[in-house]
Amino acid sequence: MLFEKIVSEGIAANSYLIGSGGKSAVIDPRRDGEIYLEHADQKDAVITHIFETHRNEDFTIGSLDLADQCGAGIYHGHAMPFTYGQPVKNGDRFTLGSLELHVIETPGHTQESISLVLTDTDVSREPFMVFCGDTLFAGDIARTDFYGKACNAEMAAMIYDSITNKILSLGDGVILCPAHGAGSICGGEIADHPFTTCGYEKRTNPQLALGREAFVRQRMIASPYMPPYFRQSEINNTQGTRLPHPVPRLKPIAIPELKKMIKDGCQIVDIRSPTSFAAGHIPGSLSIWREGISAFIGWFADYTYPIILVDDFNLNLDPVLRQFIRLGYDNIMGYLAGGFPAWCRAAQDLNAHKTLTVLALKEHLEHHMPFLLDVRDDKNWNAVGHIHGAHHIYIGELPRHLNEILKNESIVVYCDSGYKGSLAASILFKNQYRDVTNVLGGMTAWKQAGFKIEK
Amino acid sequence: MLFEKIVSEGIAANSYLIGSGGKSAVIDPRRDGEIYLEHADQKDAVITHIFETHRNEDFTIGSLDLADQCGAGIYHGHAMPFTYGQPVKNGDRFTLGSLELHVIETPGHTQESISLVLTDTDVSREPFMVFCGDTLFAGDIARTDFYGKACNAEMAAMIYDSITNKILSLGDGVILCPAHGAGSICGGEIADHPFTTCGYEKRTNPQLALGREAFVRQRMIASPYMPPYFRQSEINNTQGTRLPHPVPRLKPIAIPELKKMIKDGCQIVDIRSPTSFAAGHIPGSLSIWREGISAFIGWFADYTYPIILVDDFNLNLDPVLRQFIRLGYDNIMGYLAGGFPAWCRAAQDLNAHKTLTVLALKEHLEHHMPFLLDVRDDKNWNAVGHIHGAHHIYIGELPRHLNEILKNESIVVYCDSGYKGSLAASILFKNQYRDVTNVLGGMTAWKQAGFKIEK
Amino acid sequence: MLFEKIVSEGIAANSYLIGSGGKSAVIDPRRDGEIYLEHADQKDAVITHIFETHRNEDFTIGSLDLADQCGAGIYHGHAMPFTYGQPVKNGDRFTLGSLELHVIETPGHTQESISLVLTDTDVSREPFMVFCGDTLFAGDIARTDFYGKACNAEMAAMIYDSITNKILSLGDGVILCPAHGAGSICGGEIADHPFTTCGYEKRTNPQLALGREAFVRQRMIASPYMPPYFRQSEINNTQGTRLPHPVPRLKPIAIPELKKMIKDGCQIVDIRSPTSFAAGHIPGSLSIWREGISAFIGWFADYTYPIILVDDFNLNLDPVLRQFIRLGYDNIMGYLAGGFPAWCRAAQDLNAHKTLTVLALKEHLEHHMPFLLDVRDDKNWNAVGHIHGAHHIYIGELPRHLNEILKNESIVVYCDSGYKGSLAASILFKNQYRDVTNVLGGMTAWKQAGFKIEK
Amino acid sequence: MLFEKIVSEGIAANSYLIGSGGKSAVIDPRRDGEIYLEHADQKDAVITHIFETHRNEDFTIGSLDLADQCGAGIYHGHAMPFTYGQPVKNGDRFTLGSLELHVIETPGHTQESISLVLTDTDVSREPFMVFCGDTLFAGDIARTDFYGKACNAEMAAMIYDSITNKILSLGDGVILCPAHGAGSICGGEIADHPFTTCGYEKRTNPQLALGREAFVRQRMIASPYMPPYFRQSEINNTQGTRLPHPVPRLKPIAIPELKKMIKDGCQIVDIRSPTSFAAGHIPGSLSIWREGISAFIGWFADYTYPIILVDDFNLNLDPVLRQFIRLGYDNIMGYLAGGFPAWCRAAQDLNAHKTLTVLALKEHLEHHMPFLLDVRDDKNWNAVGHIHGAHHIYIGELPRHLNEILKNESIVVYCDSGYKGSLAASILFKNQYRDVTNVLGGMTAWKQAGFKIEK
Repeated sequence: MLFEKIVSEGIAANSYLIGSGGKSAVIDPRRDGEIYLEHADQKDAVITHIFETHRNEDFTIGSLDLADQCGAGIYHGHAMPFTYGQPVKNGDRFTLGSLELHVIETPGHTQESISLVLTDTDVSREPFMVFCGDTLFAGDIARTDFYGKACNAEMAAMIYDSITNKILSLGDGVILCPAHGAGSICGGEIADHPFTTCGYEKRTNPQLALGREAFVRQRMIASPYMPPYFRQSEINNTQGTRLPHPVPRLKPIAIPELKKMIKDGCQIVDIRSPTSFAAGHIPGSLSIWREGISAFIGWFADYTYPIILVDDFNLNLDPVLRQFIRLGYDNIMGYLAGGFPAWCRAAQDLNAHKTLTVLALKEHLEHHMPFLLDVRDDKNWNAVGHIHGAHHIYIGELPRHLNEILKNESIVVYCDSGYKGSLAASILFKNQYRDVTNVLGGMTAWKQAGFKIEK
Repeated sequence: MLFEKIVSEGIAANSYLIGSGGKSAVIDPRRDGEIYLEHADQKDAVITHIFETHRNEDFTIGSLDLADQCGAGIYHGHAMPFTYGQPVKNGDRFTLGSLELHVIETPGHTQESISLVLTDTDVSREPFMVFCGDTLFAGDIARTDFYGKACNAEMAAMIYDSITNKILSLGDGVILCPAHGAGSICGGEIADHPFTTCGYEKRTNPQLALGREAFVRQRMIASPYMPPYFRQSEINNTQGTRLPHPVPRLKPIAIPELKKMIKDGCQIVDIRSPTSFAAGHIPGSLSIWREGISAFIGWFADYTYPIILVDDFNLNLDPVLRQFIRLGYDNIMGYLAGGFPAWCRAAQDLNAHKTLTVLALKEHLEHHMPFLLDVRDDKNWNAVGHIHGAHHIYIGELPRHLNEILKNESIVVYCDSGYKGSLAASILFKNQYRDVTNVLGGMTAWKQAGFKIEK
Repeated sequence: MLFEKIVSEGIAANSYLIGSGGKSAVIDPRRDGEIYLEHADQKDAVITHIFETHRNEDFTIGSLDLADQCGAGIYHGHAMPFTYGQPVKNGDRFTLGSLELHVIETPGHTQESISLVLTDTDVSREPFMVFCGDTLFAGDIARTDFYGKACNAEMAAMIYDSITNKILSLGDGVILCPAHGAGSICGGEIADHPFTTCGYEKRTNPQLALGREAFVRQRMIASPYMPPYFRQSEINNTQGTRLPHPVPRLKPIAIPELKKMIKDGCQIVDIRSPTSFAAGHIPGSLSIWREGISAFIGWFADYTYPIILVDDFNLNLDPVLRQFIRLGYDNIMGYLAGGFPAWCRAAQDLNAHKTLTVLALKEHLEHHMPFLLDVRDDKNWNAVGHIHGAHHIYIGELPRHLNEILKNESIVVYCDSGYKGSLAASILFKNQYRDVTNVLGGMTAWKQAGFKIEK
Repeated sequence: MLFEKIVSEGIAANSYLIGSGGKSAVIDPRRDGEIYLEHADQKDAVITHIFETHRNEDFTIGSLDLADQCGAGIYHGHAMPFTYGQPVKNGDRFTLGSLELHVIETPGHTQESISLVLTDTDVSREPFMVFCGDTLFAGDIARTDFYGKACNAEMAAMIYDSITNKILSLGDGVILCPAHGAGSICGGEIADHPFTTCGYEKRTNPQLALGREAFVRQRMIASPYMPPYFRQSEINNTQGTRLPHPVPRLKPIAIPELKKMIKDGCQIVDIRSPTSFAAGHIPGSLSIWREGISAFIGWFADYTYPIILVDDFNLNLDPVLRQFIRLGYDNIMGYLAGGFPAWCRAAQDLNAHKTLTVLALKEHLEHHMPFLLDVRDDKNWNAVGHIHGAHHIYIGELPRHLNEILKNESIVVYCDSGYKGSLAASILFKNQYRDVTNVLGGMTAWKQAGFKIEK
């Protein structure tokens, strides 16, 4: 059988291409979808079906683009009104050569969530795999907070029942193919396992171990982070959206043009390392290292003004570009020609900020009282502990909490490794804070150095 | 966790790279092993361990080459005397970050076969996966005939017990990672599934369904094909073997040089299609299409005389080269510069043979009585049936059965699709048969055309 | 300076990317133009100008597509009415950093032909290079027959004067960058030199050596081949044309779909070798080997019905696709899934034809009198000589000369190496000839074998 | 004809592959020579000859490695005793198909320098190209100082005569293919032209314009920079040297291993940008940005202790690796796993230094008197001018001039763009200077800002 798991790094999203006998289906395709066609072509298979296990919130789905290229039908759960594709419901069956896909409704993460049970009729009528979307993950259960606090208990109960009654009951030996892996914002504690099984989850999944009641109670308290771009993804994915080009080309932007764009309101994303950003950057730019785009851009960027990248050497920008495209940021446009060194040579205005190693920070704290800002997420704050005196604001929510920080204060920011600290510094600078220091290596280094941690 | 399944097409061999916390292990590495290093490097992981689940017969293992490059230790079952590496036994444990590999002895395919049970201690003490080498496959059980007819029953009982007592007892939810997928000569009926689980095999594996006794009985009768190169692989893999270069370079060979080599005894492998071979080929060449090298070269080529490829356009020869290397054919040397058309332009001697479509064959058989030769394997012969009047000799055994065919007969050869028919024609030509016809499309076409099949 | 010569193999067309100081120009861009953008991006250069040295006839120019992507202006000679771009004339100057391009009108090949003289003002005011389009080639002068027999003398005189008065007078040390290299249909005898100079051509170009009068006289007699697609290119290039996609995707076509398309009138182009075609091909297909597309497709294919490729193994089809695109064949659509062997397995109808080696041909001719058809071009026919008794029809003109060949005759066709013979055989089959034989290796083999040649 | 110009960026070295009729030659091959074999293979050509126009000083030649793989003969001028290869002299001729290479001795850069005059006998007996090694460059003449001050006049006269009597006399239209392009240390002012001609140089080369006498006089005064690694290259290239592997693999080095290596004396080369280096780096590391390796490593690195790279994200290290290999640094070994951020997370000791924009520098200089250190080369210092009060030491010679700088001084270093300033800062740090500031954008920014320049 044709079986390919396509991982979109950064959002840790899994999509799948499965097929047999010259026919194939894609489950939850990403927007830069040429990879599905290439794999299918290699096996002389046509893509005939596209399934969306649910309306995704953390990326813009590529169903329409892919369907345009291969003529496949698009299918999603009937319990939500989509303006494209066809609704499916419990018991619907689809055939791809010897493979049979059987729809089961598994609501909870969203109302219209479905899972697809795969049987290989050449071998047996036993279920072989289940594509369970955002329901059961390796070591975790999907979030249930999308319908607001009031509905949280109801959705949590629903997902728990979907999992225990419909998925786990398929049999211990069934392979689980969820829509997310470790690192996804759609699950807090997903284990870093390539696949898992009903049996392994039954025995080891800590959320399942809670039991239904405790699980629901816990969910009523929990409030996972919700980056603002989720709203845009919901709109994109309910109405359907298309890319103008398969993957657009990034253009080199010379300094005079960039300065004009800055005047007219572009968004500069600096993808360099925290050290490089600290020693100099274009005023107003956002510091998000190249591998952090998927996780953080959606908190801070809008979909209108053009986005321009700044790098040191303009190396390997294609995977950076794709991260923007997958999140629906079609306003990604180009990069500073010549990189940041060109900006320096042109004698342009630049900002810089201080950095501290953890050793220096420790000494510093012995004699000074800066505003010590911890921008890690709640989980990290709670699990790892923090440095004495730290004020906790999660990086994604920093813009809405600036009133907690005085403009003239000396601010020292830290995160777990130094990247989000750099991002925080860039946000503070955009908001007229001037005395900002980032701690290189962050809490990881602090811990490594054996310094005192408070819980 | 780092998890990569590396498939060597052709021999349908699976090797695995697994790791965590900067350390990793390779299980059953192939000879062109740079792919393991690339994957490990990408995750900043060092390869510290190389495991051989058993002494492989169908390819030359790359452990020593890989160990030279990364400094890893090599480990294999203690029940066979290897001249390199270290023996392991039941209960031995190895740690890679949070992963633990636990050795279980699972003899049957070979005496010293081991499986490796993987546990992720970050998650649980439950077994998560098992790397079961050539023991239990998706839908099949490994062959047990390597120690001769006399031992077959004993080995069959042993493998059955290894599977039921040691592997399946790990729990239904455990993922099985065998050393072979569909198409391997090490299992007759392996299902085309990317992975499987203990539970799924328990319920669907037809060999297991037989029960211990019937399974052993069936194995006593069965005699799977054994290509001669298996003996060489056994020597290579017991004594250890190294490649002179990571992957050697194929050289273009001009016609004068090739003619000299032919005189001195080179082996010409023509990788073109059956039609191209039929209409003209270098006398004495062997017809094996580019994707069939792994499956068939080991029946016919020796390890001494240089091997030269002939193609039409010399396209994409790297995957062809790798198939030779993986089987230990380090005497692969180059390719005819300019391809077969250059041979024609140089007015060199060439052979050709006739072809027939199935329609033409049907008509032909109404008026003629050729020696109709079927070169498919036993399974195909039995399961699909054959054309009336056909004489059955499996392609791999054709050289040893030529005494069944008269030199002056008109021979029409067919296989399942036309490729092995071309190979058979080339072998007959090498042996002074002159009136040979290959049936294009073979039995597949015959069946498709709705013509009569005999069982 | 930025200097890249981009060669389109097959049509042997040279385009150039030159630039300095962040600006660059493309001269005579091909349609698959992403390569210009990639090279320019690498040097942080913007493409600001596109020059067309003349309205090309042998390919569809990519100016509009490229301009869409980079915003460049398009410039061509004023003496022809184009519906896009801007006219330039003698003495116009363009600046790219330190480079200056200076227009000189050099009519003769076409009325509006221009050349561009390049000066690097950082170094000197001396001319450094000249981009001379289709005027002076290495070892040849461009054809002058596009305005019909009546104008040939006038155009020949014009090009001779353009060359001697405007190009060669720039100085012996000036480097010539023509729009074509060896193998182009736009010049009969272009030398296989990467570059040349005014001085080297002055001393060695045999056309120049004739002197003006003899050159013009010779041109009045000459009638170079003119493939029908030239007319389409002229239309495309006068009116401007755009590609729907950068380079469209080739789709795998399954047999049922292909059969429907054949019924509705598609064009099948078989890109396999002459041997593979001979032993079996889809009825009605055209035999053009993969590297011969550019040179021959324009004689036989139309721009309306979809074009489908047939290969043995579907290897490396991208360069094949690009040859169609460059000639304006946007109706190239896909390829037979599974290659020709799939057609055989499906028991579909197929044609085959005989082949002969030159040795066999010689023997054959001693006892038979076939219609011996020589399809080489005039030059080859005259320069190399032919086999006794051969009838000469150039391959491109074969369809219009079929009345010279009787349907029931036994036809033996040969060319110089066997490829065009295969193409001729395919054309004869399409036209209901049934007894056709192709000579493998063609005249090259005949000569190599030392057989008698007639002149 | 086969003609490929292979440029090794960084050292701006040109090598050439030329051929015809299935035979080819490489002129001045680099060590990572698989590119020659690939190009030759594509044209079904064998490499039969390797020519060394002279014993190169600025890189380690790859002749022996290449000869091992293709069996070619190696040829160099007779006037120097090489321990490998064969001597050639004036008038020796070599044939490659229709091409003829004719040796002319052209001493001056070195005693045994030769040039190779290429004639295409298919076209004419006229010379077509000349491979003139390090003799005449586009816009410059090779250096003549390798035999010491005493011999400078003699060598200068010799090269002038070689050029005028032997090269330029070949005719204005002859194309010049020198061994270096713009940016090479083997010529001070090479023009950035892809090719040139005898005629163009005659008219525009400023060194030739001086006339013989003035040229020799000027050379007697000049003393071009000579990086210490030249001595090693001379030894390598006289005795012949081989690579252990085609191109060795860079290994990821974890921090514990790196710390052990630091103790044992490894060389850390930090290839990040000046900003990234400034904000933090491993103590003792050398700052050379990724594209500056070829130009600067040879001044500072030795051939014994292992070399380890430090990058931010470990992107695209292959071109970095090749720069080391080409210069003979086979002791290049690996890179810090995880990049510099991993060093921070591990709470390791790090250094940082200050940076200034030119605006800030201007203000700074109004109130302070730092030791202002200009590390540009003489040419830049003279041609562009400098900042008032600057002390001039060329970066390459900084280690030998440290006695000019007091340890406790506040040092502000600048170069032309900020990269060599970073390198200077790293050298000062290695030598216990602690108060070092690098000027971002360097003199280019200072000029751009319109600040005062002193000459």
